[in-house]
Amino acid sequence: MKEIKGGVTSAKGFMAASTAAGIKYEGRKDMAMVFCKEPCECAGTFTSNVVKAACVMWDIELTGSGRPMHGVIVNSGIANACTGSEGYEACRATAIAAQDALGVPYDTIAVASTGVIGMQLPVDKLVSGVGVMAGELGDSDEAGTQASRAIMTTDTVNKEIAVTFEAGGRTVTLGGMSKGSGMIHPNMCTMLAFLTTDAAIDKALMQKALSETVKDTFNMISVDGDTSTNDTLLIMANGLAGNEKIVSEGKDYEAFKEALFYVCRSLARKMAADGEGASKLFCAKVVNASNKEDARTLARSVISSNLSKAAIFGCDANFGRFLCAMGYSGAGFKQEDVELFFESDAGRLAVFDHGVPLDFDEDEAIKILKSDEVTVFIDMHEGDACAEAWGCDLTYDYVKINADYRS
Amino acid sequence: MKEIKGGVTSAKGFMAASTAAGIKYEGRKDMAMVFCKEPCECAGTFTSNVVKAACVMWDIELTGSGRPMHGVIVNSGIANACTGSEGYEACRATAIAAQDALGVPYDTIAVASTGVIGMQLPVDKLVSGVGVMAGELGDSDEAGTQASRAIMTTDTVNKEIAVTFEAGGRTVTLGGMSKGSGMIHPNMCTMLAFLTTDAAIDKALMQKALSETVKDTFNMISVDGDTSTNDTLLIMANGLAGNEKIVSEGKDYEAFKEALFYVCRSLARKMAADGEGASKLFCAKVVNASNKEDARTLARSVISSNLSKAAIFGCDANFGRFLCAMGYSGAGFKQEDVELFFESDAGRLAVFDHGVPLDFDEDEAIKILKSDEVTVFIDMHEGDACAEAWGCDLTYDYVKINADYRS
Repeated sequence: MKEIKGGVTSAKGFMAASTAAGIKYEGRKDMAMVFCKEPCECAGTFTSNVVKAACVMWDIELTGSGRPMHGVIVNSGIANACTGSEGYEACRATAIAAQDALGVPYDTIAVASTGVIGMQLPVDKLVSGVGVMAGELGDSDEAGTQASRAIMTTDTVNKEIAVTFEAGGRTVTLGGMSKGSGMIHPNMCTMLAFLTTDAAIDKALMQKALSETVKDTFNMISVDGDTSTNDTLLIMANGLAGNEKIVSEGKDYEAFKEALFYVCRSLARKMAADGEGASKLFCAKVVNASNKEDARTLARSVISSNLSKAAIFGCDANFGRFLCAMGYSGAGFKQEDVELFFESDAGRLAVFDHGVPLDFDEDEAIKILKSDEVTVFIDMHEGDACAEAWGCDLTYDYVKINADYRS
Repeated sequence: MKEIKGGVTSAKGFMAASTAAGIKYEGRKDMAMVFCKEPCECAGTFTSNVVKAACVMWDIELTGSGRPMHGVIVNSGIANACTGSEGYEACRATAIAAQDALGVPYDTIAVASTGVIGMQLPVDKLVSGVGVMAGELGDSDEAGTQASRAIMTTDTVNKEIAVTFEAGGRTVTLGGMSKGSGMIHPNMCTMLAFLTTDAAIDKALMQKALSETVKDTFNMISVDGDTSTNDTLLIMANGLAGNEKIVSEGKDYEAFKEALFYVCRSLARKMAADGEGASKLFCAKVVNASNKEDARTLARSVISSNLSKAAIFGCDANFGRFLCAMGYSGAGFKQEDVELFFESDAGRLAVFDHGVPLDFDEDEAIKILKSDEVTVFIDMHEGDACAEAWGCDLTYDYVKINADYRS
């Protein structure tokens, strides 16, 4: 497997377009489309929030139907959540506009939205946006990059990645884009992420790979503990790589899953590092936990804690906050078993050893904590399970961004 | 029942003292003692955090033993959490110092600490602090107020209250003090709160009243979602009011419980309003939920959400964030059933009605949200259960306080 330049248009047959439809933002693109003429197998995971956006309900029906799909249309600015039947009709109108413009059935088009909750979408602007984008579809890297920019809200950088790998004697490509900066605490999936691949793979098998991969990638990031109403992760596979179709677990499936894990982990880390107001990426690495679920729970609790996040912002080696967050996580353990270290490119420092605080060098700690990427490394000394989670620091800018988001 | 001036020294027989022991803070009191010569029935609830402070382990043993108690010694500045056996020995040394100074067995003295985790207590300073306080015990209001100030950390105001009520033909007094400003997301109890009463009441019955009351008071507040390692709530009853001992549920028990609820609710609200960096009290009131547990879960999720708290800080009527927080809370409901209002002393405004956003007056919303106490009122239209929760807004000062807490 190797990483290549590109994103959602890298796999054969996938095109993208984007436009400034004027939905809420001024002077920037706010709609994107990913499209493939060939029918695609599609798998997805969605928010576990009881309050699901209209577009999430639309996509759950679509991916659940088992029908092949042709594309997805995304808007930023308004989330189309808490919008009742009017919101659901906006999804249908968008998909019908794609049917008219692209000649594929409306029920092969997914939709996704991100932005303010509790506001209705301007359907006329969406529909004309679809018309514009249908005429501008392209398969260049630039078309993919522009699409990844159009779906941003408070994101400060666009997020995309692509890899190639070998399967069934052919080179297969897998690429994707995602957005997400606030209201990020995914449960069963992430904010918005769209992956495309030219692999030939069975739909059920692809769903299995996706659901398993999500647990250790998108579900292991948090910006603010708020699980969105709109979390959507979709992958579309059109088979154009010409590989022998992957229909069972084995070498090719493993190669596919490795690529999928790499792409999802990379996009997840990019989202955490670009968390609202973030000045650095804050990682927790748990090793030797008694089981995988506890390892995930512990790692995720540490990077989700407001107090831990504020300490990371202030470069304060206040390690008790990490132990406190582990303690209320729900995972069972003995503090007498735990060892804790700070790690970054500036070094590694032990601060807590089997229930006892160590006398460490504060200057050394500050040097480590000043890096752009800081890891709290936790050895549980209980078993052999491990997990990683990714978050960001809690800063003045997070408060600033969210105290006045709608205006 | 009526509220009176006072606190932890208001009930007959209870004395308090405080001193500047120089544990960590400079130029302020940092130790407090509450003492009663008569043996007291004692009940308590403690943090559910797996990582329990040494003092919490000490108190759990003590209250579990069933022995009558004589007092509690509290320090601020260092939490005595994550301190191993050395930390536990500091608790014992403190209690033995009280035995020497006051002539009561060391295992009738509870201890509590609050402050930085992962730092050892200076035992010599604690011990001499106990000696000083033993010589200065007094039962005045002022002695109680000074004690409530000595247990503060990042708190900006001290918290105390007292009430009287009638039981068994006598006037009974119940008072208390608490502290708590950050790392506040109690689960089974609160940060530190100490209640005293001259009621004569059976220990098991008092524990029952306390455990039930906590669910709707201290467990319904959150400042930052972080459940502390040190949460401790203790109540001591010495029987000096002379009422016929309350040994079964009935009129007197109900009067006791009403007073206990009033005192706990009042202290809990004071803690939420004085949350680290808070500029206002943020309440959620859920009515007509399908069951009590869901009502509590929904209310608590709303006031715990970073995004909701930031919106309250910015006076932004971004009601979708409250619905989002309800949706991921774990409680089941249909968004089509929900009605949502903003309330304060400046008015009441409907913003969401049965799944559909309302077209409301933004200026009116801002006027309501600018108050010192803002309530999100949520009608679930499902059943008849209700709950209230109390938090505070998320401000620049919260970040400031916690990015550099140790120095």
